Amino acid sequence: MPRYRITIEYDGTPFVGWQIQAEGRSIQGRLTEALFRLTGETVSVRGAGRTDAGVHARGQVAHFDLTRAWEPFKVREALNFHLKPDPIVVLDAAVAAPDFDARFSATGRGYLYRILARKAPPALDRNRVWWVPRPLDPKAMAEAAALVIGRHDFTTFRAAACQAASPVKTLDRLDVSVAGEEIRIEAAARSFLHHQVRSLAGSLKHVGEGRWTPTDMKAALDARDRSRCGALAPSRGLYLMDVVYGAL
Amino acid sequence: MPRYRITIEYDGTPFVGWQIQAEGRSIQGRLTEALFRLTGETVSVRGAGRTDAGVHARGQVAHFDLTRAWEPFKVREALNFHLKPDPIVVLDAAVAAPDFDARFSATGRGYLYRILARKAPPALDRNRVWWVPRPLDPKAMAEAAALVIGRHDFTTFRAAACQAASPVKTLDRLDVSVAGEEIRIEAAARSFLHHQVRSLAGSLKHVGEGRWTPTDMKAALDARDRSRCGALAPSRGLYLMDVVYGAL
Repeated sequence: MPRYRITIEYDGTPFVGWQIQAEGRSIQGRLTEALFRLTGETVSVRGAGRTDAGVHARGQVAHFDLTRAWEPFKVREALNFHLKPDPIVVLDAAVAAPDFDARFSATGRGYLYRILARKAPPALDRNRVWWVPRPLDPKAMAEAAALVIGRHDFTTFRAAACQAASPVKTLDRLDVSVAGEEIRIEAAARSFLHHQVRSLAGSLKHVGEGRWTPTDMKAALDARDRSRCGALAPSRGLYLMDVVYGAL
Repeated sequence: MPRYRITIEYDGTPFVGWQIQAEGRSIQGRLTEALFRLTGETVSVRGAGRTDAGVHARGQVAHFDLTRAWEPFKVREALNFHLKPDPIVVLDAAVAAPDFDARFSATGRGYLYRILARKAPPALDRNRVWWVPRPLDPKAMAEAAALVIGRHDFTTFRAAACQAASPVKTLDRLDVSVAGEEIRIEAAARSFLHHQVRSLAGSLKHVGEGRWTPTDMKAALDARDRSRCGALAPSRGLYLMDVVYGAL
């Protein structure tokens, strides 16, 4: 039973999210179907991060076991063939150690959140960015972001439905940068709470608009109160960029 | 009769191109319809560049005359309202001099051509890049590009149907750069022949693959023979980035 690790890129727009659900197309479901077409087996595909509906990935990672040993490049090419025309592609496939687990072996995850701050809505980046039709102050946003880096109780920035055992996480990086009309928020941690990046991005937008000071961001964190979260940024601006494994 | 100048972004994928045609949706046609909804007038909208079907724009420029004087920001907002849900947005609207002509007053045009060079097809950038499933040599491409800069007879890199009076153009810039898995070709000139950027990009891809040497690129140019063009790169990788006006 060889185990495979795949790296996946997808446009989250037409999907109900990573996870198989009773209704609708999911990325996990489409991968399971594509693997069935390749192997005739119904395989359990486990992802590193269960992205929500509309969230994109540049480097999602998943694992699965196959009865027969396939050449990794054949797995990649066959999956890409069977995944058409859905906007999901397998960037890389490799044989993994039998105990490799895409979710539990991960030692780091990187996310990007894109905000388009300009008067006109996006045409080329529709469904790819959060459009905010006002100028934002990236310096204030960067200042606020720096105040929430580190090990904290992130209850304020966590979905009510979050199933994590503890709200305490270590946020390693929360960088704010400017690229033309776009503000890019890059977050890195060993793991994240449900809606954590979108909650942080929505609150940073409040800071960028001047509705919050950077200190308000810190006060919201310290309150450990979900109702103090600034806003939940929409899923379309969020990208799972990469998953890091310490020792493969 | 005030004259207006607008700057436009669009995703060229669902359109037959800039120009109104007997069949199909065009960017010019959609703008004309949106202006009719705003003003009740059927207005002639003239663009700086007649982009082909599938070609995108980050900064197309057009002009038109209206009977009544509208506030420029109202023109922008009303057009963006009436253009929905098409992926066309007006980034900016301004009152222009009565003799301003989006096409003939232009003193420069900038294009970007994006090639995605990797084994897996694009998911997030589908219809936004030319997918080439092989590695390309950007150094050789840059060397070849440098050999065709300047004032030349570009007959080799011109569509058979091109209506320009002369095939002689001055290519000011043809830069090749690398951004991750992407190769970006940036071209600038006062004006271009029909299919010139796509013909240059297709030929540079031949160089990147090692099928052509940089010298072959120069020999193709010197031959002044359309049949010597390497390939016509697909429209989906091309972006009209900006139009420059010397003295407004």
